[in-house]
Amino acid sequence: MASLGDIGLAAAINILTAIAFLIAFAILRLQPFNDRVYFPKWYLKGIRSDPTPSGAAVRKVINLDYRSYVRFLNWIPTALKMPEPELIEHAGLDSAVYLRIYLLGLKIFVPITFLAFAVLVPVNATNDFLERSNLIFTDIDKLSISNIPNKSQRFWSHLLCAYAFTFWTCYVLLKEYERVAFMRLHFLASEHRRPDQFTVLVRNVPPDPDESVSELVEHFFLVNHPDNYLTHQVVYNANKLAKLVKKKKKTQNWLDYNQLKYSRNQSKRLMMKTGFLGLWGDKVDSIDFYTAEIDKLSKEIAAERENIPSNPKFIMPAAFVSFKTRWAAAVCAQTQQSRNPTLWLTEWAPEPRDVYWNSLAIPFVSLTIRRLIIAVAFFFLTFFFMIPITFVQTLANIEGIEKAAPWLKPVIEVKFIKALIQGVLPGIVLKIFLIFLPTILMLMSKIEGVIAISALERRSAAKYYLFILVNVFLGSIIAGAAFEQLDSFLNESANEIPKIIGVAIPMKATFFITYIMVDGWAGSAGEILRLKPLIIYHLKNFFLVKTDKDRDEAMDPGSLGFNTGEPQIQFYFLLGLVYAVVTPILLPFIIIFFGLAYVVFRHQIINVYNQEYESAAAFWPDVHGRVISGLIISQVLLLGLLGTKEAAQSTPFLLALPVLTIWFHRFCKTRFEPAFVRFPLQEAMMKDTLERAKEPNLNLKGYLQNAYIHPVFKSADDDDDDDSYGVIGDYKHDTLVPTKRTSRKNTPLPSKYSDSSSPSLPDVLEHV
Amino acid sequence: MASLGDIGLAAAINILTAIAFLIAFAILRLQPFNDRVYFPKWYLKGIRSDPTPSGAAVRKVINLDYRSYVRFLNWIPTALKMPEPELIEHAGLDSAVYLRIYLLGLKIFVPITFLAFAVLVPVNATNDFLERSNLIFTDIDKLSISNIPNKSQRFWSHLLCAYAFTFWTCYVLLKEYERVAFMRLHFLASEHRRPDQFTVLVRNVPPDPDESVSELVEHFFLVNHPDNYLTHQVVYNANKLAKLVKKKKKTQNWLDYNQLKYSRNQSKRLMMKTGFLGLWGDKVDSIDFYTAEIDKLSKEIAAERENIPSNPKFIMPAAFVSFKTRWAAAVCAQTQQSRNPTLWLTEWAPEPRDVYWNSLAIPFVSLTIRRLIIAVAFFFLTFFFMIPITFVQTLANIEGIEKAAPWLKPVIEVKFIKALIQGVLPGIVLKIFLIFLPTILMLMSKIEGVIAISALERRSAAKYYLFILVNVFLGSIIAGAAFEQLDSFLNESANEIPKIIGVAIPMKATFFITYIMVDGWAGSAGEILRLKPLIIYHLKNFFLVKTDKDRDEAMDPGSLGFNTGEPQIQFYFLLGLVYAVVTPILLPFIIIFFGLAYVVFRHQIINVYNQEYESAAAFWPDVHGRVISGLIISQVLLLGLLGTKEAAQSTPFLLALPVLTIWFHRFCKTRFEPAFVRFPLQEAMMKDTLERAKEPNLNLKGYLQNAYIHPVFKSADDDDDDDSYGVIGDYKHDTLVPTKRTSRKNTPLPSKYSDSSSPSLPDVLEHV
Repeated sequence: MASLGDIGLAAAINILTAIAFLIAFAILRLQPFNDRVYFPKWYLKGIRSDPTPSGAAVRKVINLDYRSYVRFLNWIPTALKMPEPELIEHAGLDSAVYLRIYLLGLKIFVPITFLAFAVLVPVNATNDFLERSNLIFTDIDKLSISNIPNKSQRFWSHLLCAYAFTFWTCYVLLKEYERVAFMRLHFLASEHRRPDQFTVLVRNVPPDPDESVSELVEHFFLVNHPDNYLTHQVVYNANKLAKLVKKKKKTQNWLDYNQLKYSRNQSKRLMMKTGFLGLWGDKVDSIDFYTAEIDKLSKEIAAERENIPSNPKFIMPAAFVSFKTRWAAAVCAQTQQSRNPTLWLTEWAPEPRDVYWNSLAIPFVSLTIRRLIIAVAFFFLTFFFMIPITFVQTLANIEGIEKAAPWLKPVIEVKFIKALIQGVLPGIVLKIFLIFLPTILMLMSKIEGVIAISALERRSAAKYYLFILVNVFLGSIIAGAAFEQLDSFLNESANEIPKIIGVAIPMKATFFITYIMVDGWAGSAGEILRLKPLIIYHLKNFFLVKTDKDRDEAMDPGSLGFNTGEPQIQFYFLLGLVYAVVTPILLPFIIIFFGLAYVVFRHQIINVYNQEYESAAAFWPDVHGRVISGLIISQVLLLGLLGTKEAAQSTPFLLALPVLTIWFHRFCKTRFEPAFVRFPLQEAMMKDTLERAKEPNLNLKGYLQNAYIHPVFKSADDDDDDDSYGVIGDYKHDTLVPTKRTSRKNTPLPSKYSDSSSPSLPDVLEHV
Repeated sequence: MASLGDIGLAAAINILTAIAFLIAFAILRLQPFNDRVYFPKWYLKGIRSDPTPSGAAVRKVINLDYRSYVRFLNWIPTALKMPEPELIEHAGLDSAVYLRIYLLGLKIFVPITFLAFAVLVPVNATNDFLERSNLIFTDIDKLSISNIPNKSQRFWSHLLCAYAFTFWTCYVLLKEYERVAFMRLHFLASEHRRPDQFTVLVRNVPPDPDESVSELVEHFFLVNHPDNYLTHQVVYNANKLAKLVKKKKKTQNWLDYNQLKYSRNQSKRLMMKTGFLGLWGDKVDSIDFYTAEIDKLSKEIAAERENIPSNPKFIMPAAFVSFKTRWAAAVCAQTQQSRNPTLWLTEWAPEPRDVYWNSLAIPFVSLTIRRLIIAVAFFFLTFFFMIPITFVQTLANIEGIEKAAPWLKPVIEVKFIKALIQGVLPGIVLKIFLIFLPTILMLMSKIEGVIAISALERRSAAKYYLFILVNVFLGSIIAGAAFEQLDSFLNESANEIPKIIGVAIPMKATFFITYIMVDGWAGSAGEILRLKPLIIYHLKNFFLVKTDKDRDEAMDPGSLGFNTGEPQIQFYFLLGLVYAVVTPILLPFIIIFFGLAYVVFRHQIINVYNQEYESAAAFWPDVHGRVISGLIISQVLLLGLLGTKEAAQSTPFLLALPVLTIWFHRFCKTRFEPAFVRFPLQEAMMKDTLERAKEPNLNLKGYLQNAYIHPVFKSADDDDDDDSYGVIGDYKHDTLVPTKRTSRKNTPLPSKYSDSSSPSLPDVLEHV
């Protein structure tokens, strides 16, 4: 087991790396030529622009003002300065609430730490159980619960602390849930008009022999929501078109690259081979080649565009239906439409830029099966990942290795190497494992057919958390423990597992401390340095950028990445809650993590990240739920641990804790969750009335008409994905489009409705 | 272990009892003076009436026509004759669908039985494993899976059968769910106008300093459902009043009794003591005494009636809100109203006679806590019931007793006693245990604050099933098994339990067979005899009945009692599914039960029962879910059993079954359940349009106004509870009531609304 010294060294290493990162950041961010890497958000907002040509040319590239280097940490106060309302205004509610997760960590753990150090540490330290025992132990273990002799009355203090911690955590969670729910409702209420407020996504429109989907949808809603139906937009399967557009963009880049190269050196024409990776095939002039390519693609794209709307096989049995009022939309989204509960399924439309278009092309029937398959696949993924982790964990334990391979002793016994292995290695290897994962999980969620990017990220987050729980947490503990008490472990049965884990937990404290330092501390510091975007930006800048627009595209602000970030934070919650009673010494490390991460991400959100969507903190119920689950896990494990400590009188009292916690969770669910999944009619009615009063003759239809057209159809130059932003703003010129109506003859209702139809897609394309 | 002979004897005993019951029934039902006991339904429908005074007086009392006795079983064909649509018309959808549960049993188990006897019985029988082993075994065990040697390849056949059985069961369940869902929707669609179609129950109306609940409700819905709100009815806490009314009724009965006695024997006045049970206290003339009592009560009741509507502390923060259209009601019931998801909670109003008024008086806040308490209480109830059961079960096992108390051997070895003990005793004792239970569980559900009687019964049913599962099923198996393999059992851990139960299952086959015969066969036969109602009716008839109305009240038709009946049926499903693979010989007994019960209950539903409410088969999802759970249990236990049989190659293939079953369940849930919990707008819209076409100027308001007034307020003579029936019919004279409006001044909207208010209660009372 690692001694305090080892931990100290590991800590030193990690703190140094962290500081190094921070200094590097502090210097790089001051260089004007990095400005677009470290302050993209401001560029996107148009507040900041490239340094003016005036002044010495060198000034544009490097910052020579020494004073700015002195105050190299002054970004921290600036990051903390911005008040929350302004932050919401600046970066959206999602980001603001995301930061509250770190705050939540601080709120929960700071008081817990004080209590733990005031009560538990002394109680544990004033024993000599470990000295008297013949176990291998470390200074850390002496401060942990392992140092308490079996059957001791002192376990009562741990019991009481467990209760105190649980109640405090629940209290904070409750307050936070209340606050976030309020923020969400307030945000939604004060929000400007947005297409999704009026729009509902309808899926599984039943096939009809003599009516097109569009007609069918219109008639259904004219009948069942007569006073409220406004217009609708059928969904096209434009995945192929999207692919073409993407390909064209890539070719365009190559062309730019070649042209740039040529313009720099006019002497010789650039030749290339057409074959795979330009390794073989006949030589051609690359510029001509790419130009030809692009022309070809443009033609294909144009053809596709003509084809899709006319060809019924590209029309999905789904549509975005818009209503005259928010009230009507809220009603339609929350009610069941048809007799057959699997037809005409309505749900809130995600805001246009949040729609994940590929999923809309999935036939609804296959979804249940897809879910099953993914569930099984995920199960296997989770449990076969165990094997490599197990192997890595064994490395994390010197004694283990020495037992296994005595001939390694001389090498390992070198103080420094030993510390290195124990301190840094396991954390890093784990980290590498985890880097590949999120993309796989995201893919899985996509296969499940989730229709909003935000929802996609939430689903993957849930999977990711489960994965971390099984592999990183249980994996590390059991595997590591298995190495020490393998025989005792293999012969045990299911209900013994809490005990086994419980016993193993104190032993793994050191491992998790190092993990926190590597993944948490250095990780956060690395996040702020943004090495990858930095390099990529400069490469792009050198090879591709011709116009300012190119430069804007070259900088990739990135975004929060809820699907990976949140589960990792949750892991620290879990660790904190589990070790709060067992090995309080771990808590300060966690607090430092939360504090550092809070500052870093606040800075990033203000200056760098650029959220692609706004879900109005729809993710909070997940956050809440996972903290609760962490709490329950910690209680069960403590139960197991005390069970082995033969603390017979105190243990039974712990049984009440999980029950109470689960009940608390259900209470919160009924109390707050509806605020995150449904839209109260009162709210809707208020906004409607207000709007009607403010702008009585607003052309809502014009506003909504093209809000939900697949981005590849919308954008004037089709290689701009962000253009779905535009939707909200540029509806005015959409309204110029004269709406043609073909299905009028079938409309069973007076012709005042007949103009309340969506424009047939060709119109949109015409004006594009 | 019981031998085939013992089973035979037990079977004989039970069959004889069953037949005796049936004959007794056949004779009694033919006696005119029992007519009201065995055909009350027809009396309530007014189709049947007491025998006419014409003809010999004796004919009125006894049936002397011998021919009718010859065909003493002819009630069976008549019971089966009535076609389902007519049955629905006659007894409601609930009853018709309830019968389908028995049919479901037949559909599932008849084919399974054939397959099992064609494949498994031969496979099992053609072994001599038990002979060669030194185990105690019976002829039944020879036909069971226990007779297959370990590691045998023959287990493949059991595996395949398990798959076949699962798929067949799921297929039948699917078809049935489809059918019932269709029946429900059809029923709802073809239903006549009913107040609950237009009405929504609103709970948790927030308190308001300067507006009464009634005003608050009206304003809220005028604002948030402006075009749809029609009227509303606040809920009063009339529990005290209801008590008084009940008491008065009881006193009335006593008075009638005394008057009758007096009229029969005028010679002496009837004296009584006023004290407890008339044991002491001063003597008074009973008739005068009761008359005085009744006067006193009448006054109190009158006072209460005045008091309640005026006194705000009797006004609950809840109301029944009615809308102009079914569409609007459907919308309001399915949507969230206010920002705060715990205020203004809306749900479908149960039909008036289904409302459980006492629950409406429960403050909503306390509900979560009540749920927690009940959950814990139920847990303890379930698991401390184990102890007596366990004790009883030990009796059920001769070998056990003899081991335990050798000195009993001589007594027990008497062939008859032995058979008696093994055959009848355990079943009966279990039965006695279970008789007390339903009332307790019903009480628990009431404490949970369920607002509809139908929902109450569903909740208690769920509890009851859990109870039976733990105590009767697991209790019997483990306890019995524990007696045989106690030592091996105590040292085992949680994940071993499926194995232990699995091993024990074949041994308990005989016990469950006898249980089926006693509880199932004799039970059903006893049900048709209706001994208790028979006696009570005749007592009442002799002591209380003066007028025809009294006689109508004297006969108690009873009803299906979903809360006790359904879980018991489910228990047979469970047994059938568990033993289908293990001991197929048990299946025929179950089939006989389902067949017999089907006939009996069909007869009862046609001639006797009188449902108090109509929930349109809302209980089917529960039925479906419990059959599924039984299926999963059977799979897990088979897994455990094969695990002990070391059938290493075949066992893993069983793991897929539970996964598939659970997935199937979730599929059905999404596919069908909405049809049972929500009301599709399409439906509503269709009915509305139809109605508007049929009766354009219908006074809906008048119709709905008093539909949801507490029964004690409605009825002209207040000791008639069934009067809430009346609601649907007698709205016409309600409309004569001039509606006074007090809160008009606070109505923020044009006065065209001001008449769309509920009448203040005094009006209702005036005309009562």
